[in-house]
Amino acid sequence: MLDNERFDLIQKNGFGIIQNKKWFSYGIDAVLLSHFAEIKDGDRIMDMGTGTGIIPLLLSLNHQVDKIYGIEKQDQVADMAHRSVKKNKLEDTIEIIKADVLELKNKFDAGSFDVIVSNPPYFKKGNALINNGSVKAQSRHETSGDLEDFIKTAALLLKNKGCFYMVHRPMRLVDIIYYCRKHNLEPKTLQYVYPHCDKPPNILLIKCVKNGNHELKHKENLYVYDNNRDYTPQIREIYRNLKIDVF
Amino acid sequence: MLDNERFDLIQKNGFGIIQNKKWFSYGIDAVLLSHFAEIKDGDRIMDMGTGTGIIPLLLSLNHQVDKIYGIEKQDQVADMAHRSVKKNKLEDTIEIIKADVLELKNKFDAGSFDVIVSNPPYFKKGNALINNGSVKAQSRHETSGDLEDFIKTAALLLKNKGCFYMVHRPMRLVDIIYYCRKHNLEPKTLQYVYPHCDKPPNILLIKCVKNGNHELKHKENLYVYDNNRDYTPQIREIYRNLKIDVF
Repeated sequence: MLDNERFDLIQKNGFGIIQNKKWFSYGIDAVLLSHFAEIKDGDRIMDMGTGTGIIPLLLSLNHQVDKIYGIEKQDQVADMAHRSVKKNKLEDTIEIIKADVLELKNKFDAGSFDVIVSNPPYFKKGNALINNGSVKAQSRHETSGDLEDFIKTAALLLKNKGCFYMVHRPMRLVDIIYYCRKHNLEPKTLQYVYPHCDKPPNILLIKCVKNGNHELKHKENLYVYDNNRDYTPQIREIYRNLKIDVF
Repeated sequence: MLDNERFDLIQKNGFGIIQNKKWFSYGIDAVLLSHFAEIKDGDRIMDMGTGTGIIPLLLSLNHQVDKIYGIEKQDQVADMAHRSVKKNKLEDTIEIIKADVLELKNKFDAGSFDVIVSNPPYFKKGNALINNGSVKAQSRHETSGDLEDFIKTAALLLKNKGCFYMVHRPMRLVDIIYYCRKHNLEPKTLQYVYPHCDKPPNILLIKCVKNGNHELKHKENLYVYDNNRDYTPQIREIYRNLKIDVF
């Protein structure tokens, strides 16, 4: 373990994740996306912008996948995610690759993935208060690859009818839908997440199918906190379903 | 009044609307859209696909508008809407025009409207169970002009920064957003309407601004019925705000 790092348990049996206190820690977004993604046995999966590697870890703990590639553009973060994979002895299932989204078309074959998931940087290039080039800022802001690059690359790498699952902010919905339709990743399911039933939604989950037909379903809304600031039964059930027993 | 017609009161003081029992009667969609649209004094307004003319009537009863053009492609329906306007003595404010959406670019100047509202046919061409050419079917199905034609025409006829308000089905959200962005009618506000808090949304309201900047807001959800199948306080307040006192 390096300076500022800690090992955060996910399951009492010892599975967990290394996180750096000064960087971006995984949040409920990654958990909700891991639950939202429909994975079949033997799927070949990519996580674009994997950060700590939390999503590959949760997916491999819950499904019999073939392989999950966790793509991370930042050297130090990719190194930390790789050490988490080793610590969990999941090297056969998860491979962390240090790469920018723009390089992926040269590293993988087109049409070679069943599922691509992504919890990308939420903020536009040059469009936020803090964008100072730090590790944390780079995890939160689009730098070299922007939202369209993520979507375009996912569309290229997925098999026909392959699925793209993304978590993002509701304020970016128009960009998301426009670029997905433009690149033939048809939005099929949309789910809104509300911090509380009296607040506007602050997270959205979207499922797109490469060359899917044109009809969108809205999945039931998720509400994170109840009036006592505890997780709602909906959220507790998601954590239980993902076998996260330390939270 | 012709065969199968009745006069439905909207206000106790006598304002109302002629409807034909065999055709399409106005529903809550038109009421919600009339409330959702933000109208300023002196606005020049178009209602694309006006049907009975309910939206021009509600807008003129609630705002000091310059002029509202109600566009209706079906001869008999346009005639009935025109007779409603006369019966309400609103000929100075509302003009019903028999035209298809595809003809509008030849009848009106580009960039000449402040606001365009639309409660268009919800169903795609040839994509529904009933599409028999009847008056009712033509009110519900895209025939000559489809969703993109409505959006493209609205984009052409609106002034810069003019507003387009539409009510539609949530399952068409991807089409709506894609065509609006494509034609520079930027979606700015989205509001979902749920028949009940336990059901998925079945109506959506969207505000777009011609050449608006790229940021979408989600307005608080509307729930139509409570557990007793009565209108919720939210909906009652909307009817009260629109001065509809007969419902």
